[in-house]
Amino acid sequence: MKMKHLLFGAAYYSEYLPYHRIDQDMDMMAQAGMNTIRIAESTWSTLEPQDNIFNFNQLDLMIDAAQRHNLSVIIGTPTYAVPTWLVRKHPDILPVTHDGQTLYGHRQNMDITNPHYLFHCERVIRRLLDHVKDISHIIGFQIDNETKSYDTCSSTAQQKFVVYLKQNFPDINTFNLEFGLDYWSNRINSWDDFPDIRGCINQSLNAEYKKFQRQLVTEFLFWQSEIIKEYIHDEQFITHNFDFQWIDYSFGYQPEVNQYDAARCMSVAGADIYHISQDQLTGAEITCCGNIARSLKNDNYLVLETQAQGNTGWLPYEKQLRLQAYSHIANGANSVLYWHWYSIHNSFESYWKGVLSHDFKENTTYNEACVIGNEWKRIGSHLINLQKKNQIGVILDNNSLTGLSEFPLETSGDLSYNIVMRWLTNSLFRLNLEYDMLSSDSCHINDYAYIIVPALYSATEQLLLSLNDYVANGGHLIVTFKTAFSDEHLKIRHEKQPYLLNECLGIEYDQFTYPSAHTEICYNYASHHMTAKCREWMELVSCITATPLGRYINSGWSGYNAITVNHYKKGVSMYLATMFDDDLLDTVLSDYISVDSECEGIHAPVIIKKGVNDYGQLLRYYFNYSNACQTVIYSGHKGLELLHNKNIANEDILTLPAWDLLIIEEYL
Amino acid sequence: MKMKHLLFGAAYYSEYLPYHRIDQDMDMMAQAGMNTIRIAESTWSTLEPQDNIFNFNQLDLMIDAAQRHNLSVIIGTPTYAVPTWLVRKHPDILPVTHDGQTLYGHRQNMDITNPHYLFHCERVIRRLLDHVKDISHIIGFQIDNETKSYDTCSSTAQQKFVVYLKQNFPDINTFNLEFGLDYWSNRINSWDDFPDIRGCINQSLNAEYKKFQRQLVTEFLFWQSEIIKEYIHDEQFITHNFDFQWIDYSFGYQPEVNQYDAARCMSVAGADIYHISQDQLTGAEITCCGNIARSLKNDNYLVLETQAQGNTGWLPYEKQLRLQAYSHIANGANSVLYWHWYSIHNSFESYWKGVLSHDFKENTTYNEACVIGNEWKRIGSHLINLQKKNQIGVILDNNSLTGLSEFPLETSGDLSYNIVMRWLTNSLFRLNLEYDMLSSDSCHINDYAYIIVPALYSATEQLLLSLNDYVANGGHLIVTFKTAFSDEHLKIRHEKQPYLLNECLGIEYDQFTYPSAHTEICYNYASHHMTAKCREWMELVSCITATPLGRYINSGWSGYNAITVNHYKKGVSMYLATMFDDDLLDTVLSDYISVDSECEGIHAPVIIKKGVNDYGQLLRYYFNYSNACQTVIYSGHKGLELLHNKNIANEDILTLPAWDLLIIEEYL
Amino acid sequence: MKMKHLLFGAAYYSEYLPYHRIDQDMDMMAQAGMNTIRIAESTWSTLEPQDNIFNFNQLDLMIDAAQRHNLSVIIGTPTYAVPTWLVRKHPDILPVTHDGQTLYGHRQNMDITNPHYLFHCERVIRRLLDHVKDISHIIGFQIDNETKSYDTCSSTAQQKFVVYLKQNFPDINTFNLEFGLDYWSNRINSWDDFPDIRGCINQSLNAEYKKFQRQLVTEFLFWQSEIIKEYIHDEQFITHNFDFQWIDYSFGYQPEVNQYDAARCMSVAGADIYHISQDQLTGAEITCCGNIARSLKNDNYLVLETQAQGNTGWLPYEKQLRLQAYSHIANGANSVLYWHWYSIHNSFESYWKGVLSHDFKENTTYNEACVIGNEWKRIGSHLINLQKKNQIGVILDNNSLTGLSEFPLETSGDLSYNIVMRWLTNSLFRLNLEYDMLSSDSCHINDYAYIIVPALYSATEQLLLSLNDYVANGGHLIVTFKTAFSDEHLKIRHEKQPYLLNECLGIEYDQFTYPSAHTEICYNYASHHMTAKCREWMELVSCITATPLGRYINSGWSGYNAITVNHYKKGVSMYLATMFDDDLLDTVLSDYISVDSECEGIHAPVIIKKGVNDYGQLLRYYFNYSNACQTVIYSGHKGLELLHNKNIANEDILTLPAWDLLIIEEYL
Repeated sequence: MKMKHLLFGAAYYSEYLPYHRIDQDMDMMAQAGMNTIRIAESTWSTLEPQDNIFNFNQLDLMIDAAQRHNLSVIIGTPTYAVPTWLVRKHPDILPVTHDGQTLYGHRQNMDITNPHYLFHCERVIRRLLDHVKDISHIIGFQIDNETKSYDTCSSTAQQKFVVYLKQNFPDINTFNLEFGLDYWSNRINSWDDFPDIRGCINQSLNAEYKKFQRQLVTEFLFWQSEIIKEYIHDEQFITHNFDFQWIDYSFGYQPEVNQYDAARCMSVAGADIYHISQDQLTGAEITCCGNIARSLKNDNYLVLETQAQGNTGWLPYEKQLRLQAYSHIANGANSVLYWHWYSIHNSFESYWKGVLSHDFKENTTYNEACVIGNEWKRIGSHLINLQKKNQIGVILDNNSLTGLSEFPLETSGDLSYNIVMRWLTNSLFRLNLEYDMLSSDSCHINDYAYIIVPALYSATEQLLLSLNDYVANGGHLIVTFKTAFSDEHLKIRHEKQPYLLNECLGIEYDQFTYPSAHTEICYNYASHHMTAKCREWMELVSCITATPLGRYINSGWSGYNAITVNHYKKGVSMYLATMFDDDLLDTVLSDYISVDSECEGIHAPVIIKKGVNDYGQLLRYYFNYSNACQTVIYSGHKGLELLHNKNIANEDILTLPAWDLLIIEEYL
Repeated sequence: MKMKHLLFGAAYYSEYLPYHRIDQDMDMMAQAGMNTIRIAESTWSTLEPQDNIFNFNQLDLMIDAAQRHNLSVIIGTPTYAVPTWLVRKHPDILPVTHDGQTLYGHRQNMDITNPHYLFHCERVIRRLLDHVKDISHIIGFQIDNETKSYDTCSSTAQQKFVVYLKQNFPDINTFNLEFGLDYWSNRINSWDDFPDIRGCINQSLNAEYKKFQRQLVTEFLFWQSEIIKEYIHDEQFITHNFDFQWIDYSFGYQPEVNQYDAARCMSVAGADIYHISQDQLTGAEITCCGNIARSLKNDNYLVLETQAQGNTGWLPYEKQLRLQAYSHIANGANSVLYWHWYSIHNSFESYWKGVLSHDFKENTTYNEACVIGNEWKRIGSHLINLQKKNQIGVILDNNSLTGLSEFPLETSGDLSYNIVMRWLTNSLFRLNLEYDMLSSDSCHINDYAYIIVPALYSATEQLLLSLNDYVANGGHLIVTFKTAFSDEHLKIRHEKQPYLLNECLGIEYDQFTYPSAHTEICYNYASHHMTAKCREWMELVSCITATPLGRYINSGWSGYNAITVNHYKKGVSMYLATMFDDDLLDTVLSDYISVDSECEGIHAPVIIKKGVNDYGQLLRYYFNYSNACQTVIYSGHKGLELLHNKNIANEDILTLPAWDLLIIEEYL
Repeated sequence: MKMKHLLFGAAYYSEYLPYHRIDQDMDMMAQAGMNTIRIAESTWSTLEPQDNIFNFNQLDLMIDAAQRHNLSVIIGTPTYAVPTWLVRKHPDILPVTHDGQTLYGHRQNMDITNPHYLFHCERVIRRLLDHVKDISHIIGFQIDNETKSYDTCSSTAQQKFVVYLKQNFPDINTFNLEFGLDYWSNRINSWDDFPDIRGCINQSLNAEYKKFQRQLVTEFLFWQSEIIKEYIHDEQFITHNFDFQWIDYSFGYQPEVNQYDAARCMSVAGADIYHISQDQLTGAEITCCGNIARSLKNDNYLVLETQAQGNTGWLPYEKQLRLQAYSHIANGANSVLYWHWYSIHNSFESYWKGVLSHDFKENTTYNEACVIGNEWKRIGSHLINLQKKNQIGVILDNNSLTGLSEFPLETSGDLSYNIVMRWLTNSLFRLNLEYDMLSSDSCHINDYAYIIVPALYSATEQLLLSLNDYVANGGHLIVTFKTAFSDEHLKIRHEKQPYLLNECLGIEYDQFTYPSAHTEICYNYASHHMTAKCREWMELVSCITATPLGRYINSGWSGYNAITVNHYKKGVSMYLATMFDDDLLDTVLSDYISVDSECEGIHAPVIIKKGVNDYGQLLRYYFNYSNACQTVIYSGHKGLELLHNKNIANEDILTLPAWDLLIIEEYL
């Protein structure tokens, strides 16, 4: 969805203010060049303080003031935090999870299949939408907030699950066989015998329940979206702020949501991206999470939340806030909305700081936001709606993520899948190789010169056949260990591994182990001779038609291969049978993947991003993610550096101060 | 409360003996110079083996034998461990806590608001008191044992909490605003909607519940004290054995009790002090915990429990038991009572060993107790009732402790407050700067030349104004990071930080972060130029009128200050915006605080403690807390070294063997 | 029990196969020289898919095919995993444990005292036995699988426990005294007041409950055994697969079963032995666990489960599978049965791989199994029924294991007892000193030249007196710290320590502590002068008549002894008062224990095992547990090396390639 201007602003909650200051806040926003606030989300107890008693005062104050200050408004439905009166009236709204019945307090603490919850949800949404439906500076609506199933295992949810299984498996014997339930006498001979899923030790069945829970999320978002559509105008968008697997920051693909499915009910995809900062700011999280968001609808996306001051360890160094904002836009985002405007004075996120500190005064973070906002007023029309055409597609798959959570690598536990995915995509990032993120059921594989497949543990026959075809037709495929090992229900294949892909890969293996502390790879390709430690997993690969590029050394497995490459019909495929150090991965990938000419010899901490803007012109961003000044030689047609409004010619030296950037728009 | 002689003895339980040997035990006690036993506490099931059936046989045997061996007796009420029959009769006596309903077994496992518990409590206390009320060698009574609320979250307790809130907040809107309950829709629009506190994620409300739980403890102790007072004589004291925040030993101020409030119902404060030993014995725990105990009533205190052999890792080296005993007395204690006389042969504390091992034979620990007891018979009258007049007061505050538990430092979790407090007081200890511990609502601030304020996260306006006044009137104030950040309900101030104190401190800040691994302070004062690593927290302080003494280096924050000093009206104040290494802290504090002349140049492991004894004479203790012999030069008037009965003159060299001490009484 | 041939094979489950392939599997087994399958165990839901509906199709298919392929069959009762319908019908079959009520899913998840469980158990066993009772190639029956009480704390179990206590303690006062229940008011004045054991904090009572739970296991196994005996023929055996304390592999004696008692209902003892592998394969686990199994009935035993590929980190290096198989046989095992034939395609143990990988193809592990099977066809008759006559007995005791779990060493927690046991037995193993494992109630102590007593924390007077007598009569005794400290109910002795044994040991102590980081032993004996770090525990031992061999140094405890030796009447005893490094232990033990002449100077990684075979000939195995080739000089009479069919004479040099072995049968 095309935007008219870059959205710049913050989440705003007049509800939590210690004193009335909406106009002061919006004055400061406007002065910073901000143009958007995101409101209402999570404030159900203010909107409906008692059962069926509604109060839109705070909302109206904010909306009216926004109009006075030329701020657009995004309205969120308030449904992800339930009021005390609702839980008192219907205690069964609190979910029963694997950890038992929850208590009231936390947000995201409800059974999204509960009919009482859904009844009250619908009522508050309809009353809210009805109240705001004709307000022109409301530009869009956000459904709920980072929706999950919150691990609901209520009897309602479990009954729905049995119905779901019955539909997929009319013959209960087929079900037992596919899920291997005879093992340890877990057989279910009658659907009435279905035991509480929370005690289940069968990973196939647990994975299916997680898939079912993801489907609940999709259904819930579609359901809200259908209600909202009854009220809104054509130019208003519907979005949702998807988040990511979390390890103190946004780390990888979200295990609990099938974002590709869920995004189909939205006009534009949104994302909440939080990342490490200070000396650890690399741009890799912004890129990886942003690439997922952009790929959900293969379009520009909104950054609905990102950090201003953020958590205690994230306070940005000088210039980092600006670098981050441009990083999002260069990646295809059309907005940077901070969570949140001011720092809250009580409760759980008091130390998740906003643009303003608790004292509401101008501070260094606010001052830097002013720089961003005012630059964008000047050059924003050159930056918005950036179109990318990447040569590399990385395949993402929720079922494989679950599979590697159920059967993890040696030390990575629930993060196993994303650790492999980030291992690969971080290397692409460092090498200045831009990439898209494809759903495993994407029909666009053949649009890419390179397809990268991280640990696709669970795969349908159809997908594996299409990957073979992709190579046969001239594609370049990179596949890691664990791929193709099990079917869509985590039933391990009883055929040769990697199942079906052994054809295009020209390899096979039937054993694997953990690398010992001294197991290494020895890599030999062209003039490159390197060794590197193995970790997490190693498959003992034999080459059938493939050429070995890396062998295991210093262990009992010296006869086996770790990295292989195979020419298959018109294409080429590479297999990585183990994980190893980043330096070697960078070498292996740069030996295998052709880089764009302007990136030749340039790699992290200097990152180049590019795309075509609304004027049809090629834009190249040069970012310096480091404390030290960097110089690079510009390779491209003549153009204009937009920030300094300065002409640039091919082979000019570009100087990038610490945590700074340049943006060059090629002349047509 | 003045004592007539130092109490020396142990807790004693004839109830747990494997065979009858009361007279043998008391013979050994008498031979060791012991004069006191503490009994009855925790033995409810012996005193009342069945409902309303009482049996005082064991008690009488001990009391009678004690009289024969000239031992005084302290009687504890037995109420902190409930009998099996009582829980069978009233299962609801077992508390519901944040971890759920408890099972019978552990001590301190009851709901102290439960009416059945209180009924039976009162009956057993009255029967016990009635039984012993006219026995002359009973010198005092101990209420319960290390009382807490045991995290009671029973419906009785929670109903009392709502009543307590209603009283404090007649207007529920004020309550919602002050606690920030609109956040995440936690608003409570009717008191009837109040949810189970155990799910609460609002730190202000959780902190208020903890404060309420501390109030339950105070009420419980007052209630028992009122009952006891009905029975006792004027010369008998009432005490309680307060304990401390525990990390395998007594570490810091007790989070679960407002000891200053609770001590008001007692004639003398008591304390249980356990500490690390062997190579790690420094005297710092005995001093810090003892200073709290002494300050509760600004008077001498009782050490009601301390270790003899103690836990497995605490077995004292030769001479350490004696050094420890004198350390308590030098600090203002009037007793050393071991927990416990003999080592128990079954159950939970079998390896928390007493003076005697399980074999009841004389051993090296017992032999050292004999040395102590017999020395005190000789010189005890010079040591007892030691009066101290310290120049330094350290402010202690339960609410701030809770605040830093809810919003902890980077790595210190629930210990955060006490880690800051001990960081400062350990430095004072090493520098031979004796100090008192003032409650944050103390009216004695102005009695001190120096006031030290560790991490006073939660503070009333009144307290902060009084600290400003203190400096204005000539005081020396030392304030650390986090101080004044929130009000008494942990609502973060929305004004300039440090709230109100920025006036006397001459500084301000609006941002903070965690120090990275290489962030350091560079300190410059007079001839001192030092650097030190920062840790846990750092505020980015700007000087308004203050002088910077320490700046941050090696990070993105080089423009900001870490240590500042400010002359404000007649006084001086210092701000420490981060934590750093002990060496630098010792330097900073010794640059700022004037030491008494006799301590000039003397520091740990040689520790000096002093006070005025019952003869009106100045006593100075010289302790050597190390394995190596130490020498120091005596600075003071002529006096008598009491242990060796030897004259000492100014500038004499004092020789302190490993783990030994000298006590010099100045001649009048 | 004598076997006719070595059993070689695997557990087999046609129930879990993804497609029908029984004949293909058995062809491959036969080709590998396998002769046995173990079936039916854990497949209740296949045998009885609905209440009282039985289906023996899968069973019959396997049994019939086995006959066609000349495979013997061992039938396991399926009772350790309950079907879904049974739990739906009787939810109270799921046990209540210390962690609460369990949910359906896991195996070994039932209350073995539950009458409904027992009813259905008996019915399925009888129907199964009835079905197979006249089949001649069924050679034996396995009762259940690694049976435990699964920590049942159901009301049925707890009521039985109270009955058990009443029987042992007709006088409740004696009970209270022996268990020390007056402490913390835990006294039980009426059996009706007995509280839920799950809250109990009295270690004596907790230990008694664990002993009671072990008795439940014994009763359950006897009960099943009696049922089975009604159906079987004389030549069929009854066994059970005992397992071991588990730390990712079989580590030590099983805390939850009294295996010596339980084994009395079996014709032959069985064991499940899993061990670390690859570079960490030492043979120590196979030896230690195998020695326990052999000692249970003082006879040959069955290895009913051991790893083929096993867990991911266990994949054997080339030749290791064969080395392992011979290691079991050399230790007195009469079988090597792999768990399991093929790798399962779903559920909990999908990565606990069998002989075959998931692809059912020949692989390196299968190929190595073929070598084993075909060698055994040739030379098996020389290997089977190996008889050992060891000089060293190590005493094992469940109560002491529990005691050290309740009162653990400094860092070893629940593993404390086995850590001490393995510390000693690993040293014996490294020194080529073969040993038996004696139950603490064994009457065979005097059959051994050396008795080794690891941490016998809980001991009856009778046992301690018999150890004194053993030394008096000329035995060599080695006793470690903690021994004799408490009685059979963990009541600590109130007499001199080590209780009673101080007589034969010639020492005493009354204090102990943890070693500090720098505490060491200095050992002096003959020409050996060594120092070593102490760890975990140290007793401060004084010699009465004993000679000190090791003293503590570098600590406050230099007056005390760590290793002592004492000549007492006709024998000699040694006391180890602390744990120390393996190198020193090897020295101390080899100074004290005479080694057999053929082992002189030979130690790990070369391990010698011996015994007398069915031909009455002495067999010596030489194992090389290392990656490097080893050579040793043969010491013995002329003989035949069986694997290479080669004559060997005294002083011949034996060459042992990496992970290889030789077997020399002396000529008569």
